Amino acid sequence: MKPLKIAICGLGTVGAGTFHLLRKNRDLVNRRAGCNLEISCVGARRDNPDCDLEGIRVERDVMAVVDSDVDVVVELMGGTTTARELVLAAMAKGKHVVTANKALIAEHGDELMAVARLNKVHLAFEAAVAGGIPIISALRDGLAANNIEWLAGIINGTGNFILTEMRDKGRAFADVLAEAQSLGYAEADPTFDIEGIDAAHKLAILASLVFNTPLSIEAIYIEGITGLQTVDITHAEQFGYRIKHLAVARRRGTGVELRVHPTLIPESALIAEVDGVMNAIAVQGDAVGPTLFYGAGAGAGPTASAVVADIIAIARDNSVGSGSASATLVDDALQAAQAVLPPEDMETARYLRISALDRPGVLSAVAQIMSNHGISIEAIIQKEPHPGENHVPLIMLTNSTRERTLLSALREIEALSSVEGPVVHIRVEHLDG
Amino acid sequence: MKPLKIAICGLGTVGAGTFHLLRKNRDLVNRRAGCNLEISCVGARRDNPDCDLEGIRVERDVMAVVDSDVDVVVELMGGTTTARELVLAAMAKGKHVVTANKALIAEHGDELMAVARLNKVHLAFEAAVAGGIPIISALRDGLAANNIEWLAGIINGTGNFILTEMRDKGRAFADVLAEAQSLGYAEADPTFDIEGIDAAHKLAILASLVFNTPLSIEAIYIEGITGLQTVDITHAEQFGYRIKHLAVARRRGTGVELRVHPTLIPESALIAEVDGVMNAIAVQGDAVGPTLFYGAGAGAGPTASAVVADIIAIARDNSVGSGSASATLVDDALQAAQAVLPPEDMETARYLRISALDRPGVLSAVAQIMSNHGISIEAIIQKEPHPGENHVPLIMLTNSTRERTLLSALREIEALSSVEGPVVHIRVEHLDG
Repeated sequence: MKPLKIAICGLGTVGAGTFHLLRKNRDLVNRRAGCNLEISCVGARRDNPDCDLEGIRVERDVMAVVDSDVDVVVELMGGTTTARELVLAAMAKGKHVVTANKALIAEHGDELMAVARLNKVHLAFEAAVAGGIPIISALRDGLAANNIEWLAGIINGTGNFILTEMRDKGRAFADVLAEAQSLGYAEADPTFDIEGIDAAHKLAILASLVFNTPLSIEAIYIEGITGLQTVDITHAEQFGYRIKHLAVARRRGTGVELRVHPTLIPESALIAEVDGVMNAIAVQGDAVGPTLFYGAGAGAGPTASAVVADIIAIARDNSVGSGSASATLVDDALQAAQAVLPPEDMETARYLRISALDRPGVLSAVAQIMSNHGISIEAIIQKEPHPGENHVPLIMLTNSTRERTLLSALREIEALSSVEGPVVHIRVEHLDG
Repeated sequence: MKPLKIAICGLGTVGAGTFHLLRKNRDLVNRRAGCNLEISCVGARRDNPDCDLEGIRVERDVMAVVDSDVDVVVELMGGTTTARELVLAAMAKGKHVVTANKALIAEHGDELMAVARLNKVHLAFEAAVAGGIPIISALRDGLAANNIEWLAGIINGTGNFILTEMRDKGRAFADVLAEAQSLGYAEADPTFDIEGIDAAHKLAILASLVFNTPLSIEAIYIEGITGLQTVDITHAEQFGYRIKHLAVARRRGTGVELRVHPTLIPESALIAEVDGVMNAIAVQGDAVGPTLFYGAGAGAGPTASAVVADIIAIARDNSVGSGSASATLVDDALQAAQAVLPPEDMETARYLRISALDRPGVLSAVAQIMSNHGISIEAIIQKEPHPGENHVPLIMLTNSTRERTLLSALREIEALSSVEGPVVHIRVEHLDG
């Protein structure tokens, strides 16, 4: 059997990890692929001292890689400008592409897939979502018979590390963020992680597979974890909930909700136990019921595991057909195209924390406003005031309520003279049915 | 595109579930398959009033199905005699086979796969292990780049339901078993479930994929949950452990350990939280690190989800090649063939419960015997005797110890005049590295 020739573009953490995994597990990988996988070219601005490139063609200008005699171009550079050009050029030359680049797929995926289809090549990106967890393959293959009702993922390890530390040790957000940066879990500019952009990129990819929504984060409601206070994590626990930064895609009668936000999850849900930098995605299918896929979301090994799995799949497919790739790696949607709902039409239960004056009648006024808007209070905790303070926190859980309704009620509550400051409100997901 | 013609053999719970899922999600399933999936034949001794068979050829003698004009035979009858004959006959006629029959694959899989290879047809059995969890596909595809270090699964829902009830409610084994039977979770003859045979069938299949061990349960060490006492579940909790009925495949330097037994798991491990009838499989790969796959292990919907996923995979592959099936569905092993270790060479940490006379020197005598055999005591709890009893339970956790060494030590401990009856011993898995 002819070997499958591979070009690795980018020799950073993930590039080097892929290089080493292909070498380390060579026999096993070749057996699974049905042919030899051969790194015949590397595109990298400079060498990585950890990678022995002897016998391998090395291109300093990564675009030159597409002119080499390779079957698969593996894009592990990151960024979206050069990466997009490279991937387009490679596919135009009939080369399959594997990428771990979530931003590239989330922002340019529709264009790239169209080109892949046109050129009958594979465009594979298992590594772009949740690192080592084979969630793309699970949605496309393992759960292919299901109408997916919703999926909910912890798909940013940095954010989950921060929330886990805040809960376990009662520490403040800024404090833990600084530690995450010093540990190398968070970037020097952590905006993408803590503001939910990174999770939104991954959600856009998952939702496009399941609901055929456009590959774009524009329609996604995104709320970061920067405003989260430790006191709300503690109150949530008193109701039996944990707070996680969830990415949710949920089918409604009129369209699909796509949202990333801090979320109260019942502590009995398995995903509530996913701590530290680990990732997990819960998927609810109409036939299979509840499922969960758990693993590392980032790092050289887990990401390389996904990249090499994609290369193996391409090798297998290549060895079967006569050069014409199957449609399965580029023709993706499980369901007919669905509209993304605007944020004001989304519906979730809520956790509310109201800072109220400690005097009679406040609870009754708040309850009246909620009732006027048709919102039920499902649970409530009112604390005694601390000595010397005249405000008490009034904490409650509501039933599932449309965003616009809830915001109207909150405006009225905030206008009460007995209520101080804005009402803290956090979404709740019960993750059932 | 030509439709893919399907014969469903067996119209019990799973057969009817598959029939309904193919109808209910027809559009979605056809889009994912790349062609129409058509139920053109049913083999069943009698009709199922829930399935409308109009327009479908019905064979009362299931063997006649292989003479019908179908591309795929779906075996959902159970049993191993007729099922084996049917599958062999179907493959001999060039038909692909999908089955949910774990006993069939675990007992005759090597023979059946050889015939599948010879006839260049698919033999797919995602539904045979852990129902709706796409674990076969995860091991073959998603984690294909990994040397798997171990896997550990809760893969019998009945057993897990019983253990969950025993822990949550302090109930006795026999009591919960009776309830499980009345709820329909356990068969009238529950032997296969509670003695670990069912789990061993599934473990044989998973291990064959990962370690290329023979498809047979003969070499598997199997211990059921019938002897498990509620008191040990309680003591385990005091050490911070839960007891689960685990199926474990673990690579050692000299071979593979395959074993099914009650197991103490640290309560911090995600799989320790898998309760009731749910299943989960934890897999440790050398590149990906720890992963977990969770879902329903049985039932019409989850099993049909896996059966239809297999049919879709066959349809896709069919639409690519020129009738010649790819090797991926029948040529399975991730790694070179490995020997299965005999039970006496297996190694695990242990939980021990010793019933000792309440008098000085007993602990010292026990500790001396352990030390003589090179066994470390990692943790110990000694309870005060109940009023009127002169025996006290002495409970300890050991380090990881070879089976033969441990059993020698236990024989000496049991021979002490201050020790009453046999020592209760349960394996411990830390599920790390």
